[in-house]
Amino acid sequence: MKLNKNQDTHIVIVGLGLIGGSYAEALTRRGYTVSAVTRSQSSVDYALQRGFIAAGAAFPDPELLQKAELVVFSLYPHTLLQWLQANQHLLRPGALLTDVTGVKGSTVYAIQDMLRPDLEFIAAHPMAGKEVCGVQNADAAIFQNANYIITPTERNTPEAIATCRELGEELGFARISCLSPEEHDDMIGFVSQLTHCIAVSLMTCTECEHLVDYTGDSFRDLTRIAQINDEMWSELFLMNRDPLLHNMQRFIDEFERLKDLVAAGDREGMRQMMQLAAKRRKLFNRPGDKNQ
Amino acid sequence: MKLNKNQDTHIVIVGLGLIGGSYAEALTRRGYTVSAVTRSQSSVDYALQRGFIAAGAAFPDPELLQKAELVVFSLYPHTLLQWLQANQHLLRPGALLTDVTGVKGSTVYAIQDMLRPDLEFIAAHPMAGKEVCGVQNADAAIFQNANYIITPTERNTPEAIATCRELGEELGFARISCLSPEEHDDMIGFVSQLTHCIAVSLMTCTECEHLVDYTGDSFRDLTRIAQINDEMWSELFLMNRDPLLHNMQRFIDEFERLKDLVAAGDREGMRQMMQLAAKRRKLFNRPGDKNQ
Repeated sequence: MKLNKNQDTHIVIVGLGLIGGSYAEALTRRGYTVSAVTRSQSSVDYALQRGFIAAGAAFPDPELLQKAELVVFSLYPHTLLQWLQANQHLLRPGALLTDVTGVKGSTVYAIQDMLRPDLEFIAAHPMAGKEVCGVQNADAAIFQNANYIITPTERNTPEAIATCRELGEELGFARISCLSPEEHDDMIGFVSQLTHCIAVSLMTCTECEHLVDYTGDSFRDLTRIAQINDEMWSELFLMNRDPLLHNMQRFIDEFERLKDLVAAGDREGMRQMMQLAAKRRKLFNRPGDKNQ
Repeated sequence: MKLNKNQDTHIVIVGLGLIGGSYAEALTRRGYTVSAVTRSQSSVDYALQRGFIAAGAAFPDPELLQKAELVVFSLYPHTLLQWLQANQHLLRPGALLTDVTGVKGSTVYAIQDMLRPDLEFIAAHPMAGKEVCGVQNADAAIFQNANYIITPTERNTPEAIATCRELGEELGFARISCLSPEEHDDMIGFVSQLTHCIAVSLMTCTECEHLVDYTGDSFRDLTRIAQINDEMWSELFLMNRDPLLHNMQRFIDEFERLKDLVAAGDREGMRQMMQLAAKRRKLFNRPGDKNQ
């Protein structure tokens, strides 16, 4: 299939949370017919009222699912597999399925293994979010400036990869790229999960409530993501355990090395490390970033 | 002394870098007569041209220093002590001296010990900055929303403390508070130096240039401060070695605890830690913060 606004492509979002709701908003704005299937009626009502969706149901409505040529799953990883086991018989033959899950190796192959042969699942990870959840916080603007990563396997068709790329473009992502599930998981273990582990540990390593009046921006910036959805992230950590542990150890080793330099008073060693960090970090700056 | 715009209080800034230049800009705007003594003539020229100062010299000009009722030192810690040893005889009797140094225990007492008895030094730390340096990047706006910390000792007079507080207000700081030099150093070892150590280690623990296309905001936010002035920060780290090492160890212990929970698959333990982190971090939010 190809996305086609004029021929009225039907898209169903399964799971109307922060990300699912933001997909719905963005795709409706782009002219698609978007409906949603989720757990709570109040999320459906909110999305209808805001005009994010044309129709919705608080159960896996066969009528909506039968119409959908594209289904986007915005669910917790374990729920996604359960949902498909229970409901894949309701999906339209030939439908393309995609997701927004933050871990890939432990999900993609299992899903592709159990899927009806007339359906195709192409995994993707929109690297965008907020420190709040729920459709009430949905906002299509979070995709601007963000990265969209497609993680195809050998079982995916070139057509599905192309449609998934088109979806990322329609959502407004700044950069769209492809990685293998394994490359994705190692990368995410480093840039996303490790950083959340650091932020959490920084907030819990000492009683720090009294420091509110003394902090500068550095501490706030490093701990912003400690406002974490513990249900989701504990699941993501465990589903990506080996790459995460590997990256945690890599960070500990380097942090211990810096600590040894400080303890030894090795100013030249510290400066070399700082210079490398500063040089590398400049590559990550974007136009308009704070303090550039 | 009290700051008095109408009676034309003369202020000299010693060291026209990012912070010194921003002080000059802010205080000139508030109506004071501000001049500067610094190392480079090009910094003097820039500040004159931008109207940050009324006069300036690229040497410790006796004429400017004799006029100053308030002297603000915006120098690297070791340079501050050297400057005073060489030039304190040039200062106006009764002048009040203050600074912007990021470490206190290792500087304040030494300065107060060697100072002429007719001068008073009251230490302060403006917790504001940028990832760039030099008067060319000066910007009085960096003090808004920021914290200003005064670290008096037993040798300071109530009048000097009050004037220093008034200075913080005139500069536009959001919160002004007093800490002992020791409390300051432990706090700064945690909220500022530890966070810089984390950002640096995160940038250097693995070759990560290829990750530019895949990172979300978390990694960018956690590493922004890795764009570090290695000359200044290596000096600050070494002058605050014990509190910094203590805080580094505290962080390592907690991070290792989280790693053990991940390795053991202890989801409940991870969730408890995340919940505490999220609850604590909410206290640090400010109106208008990103993603609140």
